[in-house]
Amino acid sequence: MIRSIHESPLYSIVNPTSIAFFGASNTFMRMGSIMLSSVQALGYEGKIFPIHPSEKEVRGLTAYASILDVPEIPDLAIIVLPTEIVCRTLDDCGKKGIRHAIVVSGGFREAGPEGAKLQKELESIARRHGIRFLGPNCLGVANPHIKLNPTPIKAEGPAGFVGLASQSGSFITQMFNYLHRHGMGFSAALSVGNEASIDIVDCLEYLGACPNTKVITLYIEGINRGDKFVEAAKAIALHKPIVALYVGGSEAGKKAGLSHTGSLSGPNEIYDGIFKQCGIIRAQTLTELFDYALALGTLPPPKGNGVVIQTHSGGPGATAADACGRSGLTLPRLSQETAERLKPLIPKTASTANPVDMTFSKNHSEDYFNIPDILLQDDQVDMLLAYFVSPSLFIERILLEMGIEEDLIPAESDKLISDYADKFFSLTRLHPDKPIVGFTYRSLQEKMARTLLNRGIPVYQDPERAARSMAAVKAYYKRRDEIKSDATG
Amino acid sequence: MIRSIHESPLYSIVNPTSIAFFGASNTFMRMGSIMLSSVQALGYEGKIFPIHPSEKEVRGLTAYASILDVPEIPDLAIIVLPTEIVCRTLDDCGKKGIRHAIVVSGGFREAGPEGAKLQKELESIARRHGIRFLGPNCLGVANPHIKLNPTPIKAEGPAGFVGLASQSGSFITQMFNYLHRHGMGFSAALSVGNEASIDIVDCLEYLGACPNTKVITLYIEGINRGDKFVEAAKAIALHKPIVALYVGGSEAGKKAGLSHTGSLSGPNEIYDGIFKQCGIIRAQTLTELFDYALALGTLPPPKGNGVVIQTHSGGPGATAADACGRSGLTLPRLSQETAERLKPLIPKTASTANPVDMTFSKNHSEDYFNIPDILLQDDQVDMLLAYFVSPSLFIERILLEMGIEEDLIPAESDKLISDYADKFFSLTRLHPDKPIVGFTYRSLQEKMARTLLNRGIPVYQDPERAARSMAAVKAYYKRRDEIKSDATG
Repeated sequence: MIRSIHESPLYSIVNPTSIAFFGASNTFMRMGSIMLSSVQALGYEGKIFPIHPSEKEVRGLTAYASILDVPEIPDLAIIVLPTEIVCRTLDDCGKKGIRHAIVVSGGFREAGPEGAKLQKELESIARRHGIRFLGPNCLGVANPHIKLNPTPIKAEGPAGFVGLASQSGSFITQMFNYLHRHGMGFSAALSVGNEASIDIVDCLEYLGACPNTKVITLYIEGINRGDKFVEAAKAIALHKPIVALYVGGSEAGKKAGLSHTGSLSGPNEIYDGIFKQCGIIRAQTLTELFDYALALGTLPPPKGNGVVIQTHSGGPGATAADACGRSGLTLPRLSQETAERLKPLIPKTASTANPVDMTFSKNHSEDYFNIPDILLQDDQVDMLLAYFVSPSLFIERILLEMGIEEDLIPAESDKLISDYADKFFSLTRLHPDKPIVGFTYRSLQEKMARTLLNRGIPVYQDPERAARSMAAVKAYYKRRDEIKSDATG
Repeated sequence: MIRSIHESPLYSIVNPTSIAFFGASNTFMRMGSIMLSSVQALGYEGKIFPIHPSEKEVRGLTAYASILDVPEIPDLAIIVLPTEIVCRTLDDCGKKGIRHAIVVSGGFREAGPEGAKLQKELESIARRHGIRFLGPNCLGVANPHIKLNPTPIKAEGPAGFVGLASQSGSFITQMFNYLHRHGMGFSAALSVGNEASIDIVDCLEYLGACPNTKVITLYIEGINRGDKFVEAAKAIALHKPIVALYVGGSEAGKKAGLSHTGSLSGPNEIYDGIFKQCGIIRAQTLTELFDYALALGTLPPPKGNGVVIQTHSGGPGATAADACGRSGLTLPRLSQETAERLKPLIPKTASTANPVDMTFSKNHSEDYFNIPDILLQDDQVDMLLAYFVSPSLFIERILLEMGIEEDLIPAESDKLISDYADKFFSLTRLHPDKPIVGFTYRSLQEKMARTLLNRGIPVYQDPERAARSMAAVKAYYKRRDEIKSDATG
């Protein structure tokens, strides 16, 4: 285990101050060129030295015919070259004094016996020079916090708190958009490829020590250093949640993984056991992986399993109740006092049972503060799950009927929604030990959901996803406390 | 069982040529006013007669002080009035000669013993006049095919093929946006409320006979006429798929349903058994309900369980393989011939195993026709599941690099994508017996996904949802054939 992030072989790979870039040219449709253009698009502020045999300039940057010509020793080499010249290039990097690299190029172990031989050679060159590298057959890293994105797809959205270590390169580059749409962002994302020099355990240790990472997500097709993985995960899970998606368990997933990175998978049950032992929360799908990450990165530890559901209408309330039941959460009966306090705020036909169904409400501002505040004050309530229809639908109609000029309505409505969202968010300060979660069947890009997500309140597109995520948070803290007391007891 | 849609008590409720509207006024924030404004917004072409005690005009329409003053007998009465005057109003409607009604007003059985008594009275008035009605405590109907939407939320998107019978009103009005975003639309949506006169069995029969409805979806909190339900469902499932979400099974769901419409639920297992017996596909969540509906409404019956996965990258391929495995689908090995035919079209590092990982492809047009066409020609392949990254990301970059003017790029890119989508869609004609499904982690509102959805190819936001939906289609046709052969054997 590393004691500090600076001890990690990944430190200079994730936080380089200068990069030698091999494989970018002025011909656009080459992977190297695309990757360099992503780096430029996000605005990385370190130095970039493109290495190109003939071009004097690559994508507006001074290019060098050989790494040996570069006027300083770059922190990191990124290699996106044809398989045949990768070994020679890494050797040159070593001669130059470079000690960290990302080998994007494929054609190694995953390509069969010939490739495996070539990978051995690559490993031996690295060892000789003391180089640590990610890959081969990977997409490297993304570190939005320093505006570094040398992956093929442009980054979107702000940097965030989700650390990802992935045995698939796709997920570090194809998930920018997904995370942003769902209210998250990467703290750092690492693609390990064939794990010739740096493996998923190193990544886990790095993310455990990374101050920008509040939740660690793992995409796993197979773990090689099992003991080290358990040791690291167990230590990290005591202070930072880890969620893992393992796809090698099913017959089909196993085959797919094998042809992808050539790593060995094992039966589902073994991985289940390992994860449980370490306090890792297991996700079954990629959607769950990031759903759980959102909840774990934003919610406080709940005291118990009791959820109060606040809804405008019965059906969404009942589906949410059903979802909570399936996820092992309970719907406590609210106190008589709570019911009495709610009555003046809700219509006669509304229900003060749990789910609290406010039905058709005339005064939206109550929905976003007074009502949930009363619910959260109830001692039986450990968490709040609130259903949001799009309030803008109603607000815009009201403003129209009030005679507000049509042009002014979107701005007025946005202002009101922003105000409601602020009030709702203020509940997290008033009830700092009670997780507050929303769900909607509308788009997360609508103003209310978007504003809440930006403020740090998780909103899901389905009560099932919300309930499972809340249960994952409860499960994480329960398991963490068990591991803690095992260690001290 | 009805023999024709015209025999259904719902026919005039879903397809009225004229409506008497009780409870709309010129005061906007009343439920009745909001509902009438939805009707006007969608552009219903039948006659509307607002009934109002004092106003001469309601929302621009000539109003009548009493239903008895209306110059003709409307097909349908929609009643959105305070509980106390509902019975009297329905009696007036009966005197006028109206034989169909929607009672939106609540405060009946769901409100306790007093309300239950009032509901008995309502039922007896209806019986006396030969009136059949939806409700009370419901939101009535939406029939986008005749531009009729007397529900509180404005309709979005075109009419579609999804019939919904729901024991929650929310879902007939709050799902327009959801269905549209996911590539669907309602054929007709029915909210049954307390089921005093027309129940979910009547709705099922109506939707079974409705020519616009290709798939029936049911939201169930509890069924009262169990035998009739089974009889109707069994007959309908032979020619039209039915998907049901039952939320009364969990303790929490049961309680929520009880306070919502007061209907009785039963243990999960009983409903499971009923559904299986009838050939109804069960959904566990609302998301699944409509995911399955999309697949069942667009895909042909697959011959077997064999899926070929086409992907640009390993991770999404492996998660899709894992999802298929979990859903009971298999990933057959492709024939040697298929592999040989693929080789010239994909990079050296690509995989011709299943999942077929095309990796980084330079010629996108192959991805949307030649490659999937070859895969679908393989005898081992019963279905295709294709992963889509956003092609516009790449296309726009290429066009930019080619020196195309920045202003012209979005239109050029749209044209190319539309062309790819057309080619991909043409595969459904070439392989009419093989379901073709897509998935993406990006928004369904992006051009490629949107275009495919509009053409009738289901695209899901997660391979898990895609695989489960494909398995639901297989399960439906398998069960249907078993019921058929039981009947004939």
